[in-house]
Amino acid sequence: MKTVEVKLKDHSYPIYIGSGLISKPELFHPYVNGRQVMVVSNETVAPLYLEKILGSIQSAEIKSVILPDGEQYKNLETLNTVFDGLLKSRYSRQSVLLALGGGVVGDMTGFAAACYQRGVDFIQVPTTLLAQVDSSVGGKTGVNHALGKNMIGAFHQPVAVITDTDTLDTLEDRQFVAGMAEVIKYGLINDSDFYSWLENTIDKLMSRDKEALAYVIEQSCLNKARVVERDEKETSIRAILNLGHTFGHAIETITGYTKWLHGEGVGVGMLMAAEMSKKLGWLSSEDVSRVSGLLKKANLPTSIPKEISSQQMIEAMAVDKKVQNNKIRLVLLKAIGDAIITDDFDQNLLIETIEDYRL
Amino acid sequence: MKTVEVKLKDHSYPIYIGSGLISKPELFHPYVNGRQVMVVSNETVAPLYLEKILGSIQSAEIKSVILPDGEQYKNLETLNTVFDGLLKSRYSRQSVLLALGGGVVGDMTGFAAACYQRGVDFIQVPTTLLAQVDSSVGGKTGVNHALGKNMIGAFHQPVAVITDTDTLDTLEDRQFVAGMAEVIKYGLINDSDFYSWLENTIDKLMSRDKEALAYVIEQSCLNKARVVERDEKETSIRAILNLGHTFGHAIETITGYTKWLHGEGVGVGMLMAAEMSKKLGWLSSEDVSRVSGLLKKANLPTSIPKEISSQQMIEAMAVDKKVQNNKIRLVLLKAIGDAIITDDFDQNLLIETIEDYRL
Repeated sequence: MKTVEVKLKDHSYPIYIGSGLISKPELFHPYVNGRQVMVVSNETVAPLYLEKILGSIQSAEIKSVILPDGEQYKNLETLNTVFDGLLKSRYSRQSVLLALGGGVVGDMTGFAAACYQRGVDFIQVPTTLLAQVDSSVGGKTGVNHALGKNMIGAFHQPVAVITDTDTLDTLEDRQFVAGMAEVIKYGLINDSDFYSWLENTIDKLMSRDKEALAYVIEQSCLNKARVVERDEKETSIRAILNLGHTFGHAIETITGYTKWLHGEGVGVGMLMAAEMSKKLGWLSSEDVSRVSGLLKKANLPTSIPKEISSQQMIEAMAVDKKVQNNKIRLVLLKAIGDAIITDDFDQNLLIETIEDYRL
Repeated sequence: MKTVEVKLKDHSYPIYIGSGLISKPELFHPYVNGRQVMVVSNETVAPLYLEKILGSIQSAEIKSVILPDGEQYKNLETLNTVFDGLLKSRYSRQSVLLALGGGVVGDMTGFAAACYQRGVDFIQVPTTLLAQVDSSVGGKTGVNHALGKNMIGAFHQPVAVITDTDTLDTLEDRQFVAGMAEVIKYGLINDSDFYSWLENTIDKLMSRDKEALAYVIEQSCLNKARVVERDEKETSIRAILNLGHTFGHAIETITGYTKWLHGEGVGVGMLMAAEMSKKLGWLSSEDVSRVSGLLKKANLPTSIPKEISSQQMIEAMAVDKKVQNNKIRLVLLKAIGDAIITDDFDQNLLIETIEDYRL
């Protein structure tokens, strides 16, 4: 088992990474001991792992809430069903919520924990690659609004992240691929060595080599933890973790959160960010080819459908948490492994970039 | 103008109290300067003060969201209309929300500010006595759930509270009386001198003597600020501010938030707490008479209708943020001016107490 510590001003917490962890009661014990526990999962994940996890939790009272599966359910209405469950069972302020699932379950459970009685503890048990390398770490929680992704939420850190790599065995290919986008992101934004390692190891990773995957999860968590520790509430540097996300969120919003997975949007979004960086004279054509090459090997999309107009994209991108003074701010690349945040670019370049990838 | 400072670990903020303050642009300027501003108010308050306040705000972009008036609208659905307004106008993370209204508007606006893009600034401009002496101070924000009051929320402090005492001129009597309950509370929980002063000044206060009211608001804010400074997140002592509230919230929940005002529930709730304290041997019959006497002079209710059974009350009281290990915890009085929090009482005493006040 590997352990990554996230060290924050107010509290620190461990990320445990390894095989078979959800069957180890001793990992859960310090956080659930004697308290009311509510496991929040979804229709896809619960049949696979709910019983296992219940077996690992010794507590006076354990209940579960099962949500529908999909980003389109990540909204206030679904969130309210978690509150219904908690209140019907009279769960107290000392309760612990446990998120068993991917990014959607984790974000919603975390937000429910942030708001229930103005804040209770929660544990992340991420079961998708994307959640394991990204969304379960760092305390960003929330739901979507019809007009923008993740627009309603809170910073609320988990008390622990327990990542059982065996859960990836049951992860469908498309979800696995979506997670790879966030992995590639860490290389692109601040770890060129890791990026080269990914280029050399991508075939092994795509065949889900266990050892390589455990390394990828650890390195991703380390990369993310170091950024979050410097800027927990995203007042500055943390925004680099959003490479590709402004493009990606726009695609998700335009398509109603049903057709594109978050990681898929981020994948092509990173390629657009690389292209923009080339147009600004920072990346070479070879750099951009390296990005598109790795995305292709990871089976991530490298274009968006023609039905999405660049005007729609620009409008949706204008609803983004990084916007300041009505200007779209983007995470771009000075080099592979060196991201910056800027609003200093000609909007026409942005439109051209989007047009380049409408196929 | 009086100023009370609330000094917290992470940030401090001023409460300005005085006549005509909403017409003083210089008070708003430091917080709104050049930023997008969203005024949130309700159908009753907006016609009276919205235009005035808009005249005091110099900003690039000012919009407003007008909510329906009433505790029954303090829920996630109404909250979402604030998010609709913010997102339709593409309000950024640098926006400022301004709550213009009573406790419901303040609690919802504060919670919207806590959650919008994971947290933006907000200003409280309380226009009811209850909001001026209590709910606008201390950063408790949130909405109700059908199964319990204030069950969904966040701690999110305002950047400033601007209390214009002239707004009380338009406050209807019943709302004024409801606010008096929270004023009386401060005397009961930790300021016996203030309590005696209230007993001597109650007639003047009920005739809305301006000078007496300004003193009452200042003293109430000072009392509250000192408690909140010691325990911002209510891990211990802050709970004494809930004297009468467990009873009061239960009444509000049972009656669907439509028949009882919050302050009315708190009023009779404090009397029940005093009665419980007498049954436990802490208060004398004379003390309880002092409490019922002052409540009566303030036109606050001193009983609940027979239709509410003690069983209903106990069940609703069991859904309370102070509950631990399934035990109802109450704020009770060791003496007038000395509150404690305890779960060490016989439940039969609680039932007897409720029965005593079902008339």
